[in-house]
Amino acid sequence: MDLFVERGFEQTTVTEIARRAGLTQRTFFRHFADKREVLFGGGAALQEFMVSIVASAPESAAPIDAVAAALEAAAEGLHERREYSRQRMAVIAANPELQERELIKLARLAGAIADALRKRGVPDPAASLAAEAGTTVFRIGIDRWHAETPQRDLLDVIRDSLDELKAVAAGK
Amino acid sequence: MDLFVERGFEQTTVTEIARRAGLTQRTFFRHFADKREVLFGGGAALQEFMVSIVASAPESAAPIDAVAAALEAAAEGLHERREYSRQRMAVIAANPELQERELIKLARLAGAIADALRKRGVPDPAASLAAEAGTTVFRIGIDRWHAETPQRDLLDVIRDSLDELKAVAAGK
Repeated sequence: MDLFVERGFEQTTVTEIARRAGLTQRTFFRHFADKREVLFGGGAALQEFMVSIVASAPESAAPIDAVAAALEAAAEGLHERREYSRQRMAVIAANPELQERELIKLARLAGAIADALRKRGVPDPAASLAAEAGTTVFRIGIDRWHAETPQRDLLDVIRDSLDELKAVAAGK
Repeated sequence: MDLFVERGFEQTTVTEIARRAGLTQRTFFRHFADKREVLFGGGAALQEFMVSIVASAPESAAPIDAVAAALEAAAEGLHERREYSRQRMAVIAANPELQERELIKLARLAGAIADALRKRGVPDPAASLAAEAGTTVFRIGIDRWHAETPQRDLLDVIRDSLDELKAVAAGK
C-alpha cells in the first residue's frame, strides 16, 4: 500500500509490491488476482460480515437499527487499521478507475444489505432506502474519520454520522 | 433507444441509430460523441438544473427541503418521458459497463448537489448526507415509477419515497 502512495497506483508493478512485502510473485498471485485486489480483496468478506449482522439483529429491530448494527460492527473491525484505510482511500482518490471500482463495491454492498433486510420481511422501498442510507453513512463516516484531528474512534464517527442523517431527514 | 432495446446496446451501431432517427452520421456526431451519449448526454443538463433549484430555494429551507425541491422539479420534467426513461433503464440494466457509468453519473450529481448546499452555508457532513440521500430517493423513485402499475405521477412517487426515507431514518 505504501508503494502505491509513493509511486502512484498505475506506476507500481506487482514485482515491486511482492518484493516490498517479501513475497515471491507466485505467492502474491496465490492471494491476489492482480494489484487491484490488494485494494478491493477485502470487500467481499466485509459485505458478508455486514450482511450476517443485519440477518442476526433482533426481530424487533427497525430496519435502520439492523443496518446501524452492521455499520458499528464493521467500524470496530476497521478501527485498528486506520493508517491502512487512510492510505487506501488516498490511492483510490488519485485514480478515476479505482474510484469507479469503489463506487461499484459500495453499490454491491448496499444491494446485499437491502437483500438481507428483505429476508427480514422489510418491504421495498424501505429496504433499499435503509441499505443505501446506511452505506452512505459508512462511506462519509470513514472519510471524516480519516480527515479529523485529533483522531476519534471510528465507531463514534459512524454513530455521529448516523445521527446527522436522522437530523437531516427530519428537516433540521 | 428502441434499437438498443431490440438489438442490445453492444450490437447496435451508430449507423443503425442514425438511419432509424433519419439522421446522417455526420449530424449524429454533431450531437453525440458516441452511442453512450444517447443514454447519458442529458446528465449534465439535469445536474445543472437540479443544482440551480437547490441554489434558489428559500434561505430558510432546511437542506433536505432544498434537495426535495430539486427532485420535484426534475420529476416534473421527466414525467412526460416515462417510456423513454423506462427503455433507457432497461438498456442500462442489461449492460454492466453502462451500469457503472450510471453509478458515476449519480455520484457526480450527488457531489454537485452537496456543493450547492455548502454554498448555502450547510456544513458537512449534513451537506453530503442530504445530497446523497436525495439522489438515492430520486433513483429508487424512478425505479418504482417504471415498475408500478397502474402508472402514477413521478412527482407522487418521488414524494412518497422521500416520506419513506424520513420514516426509515426515524427508526420506523
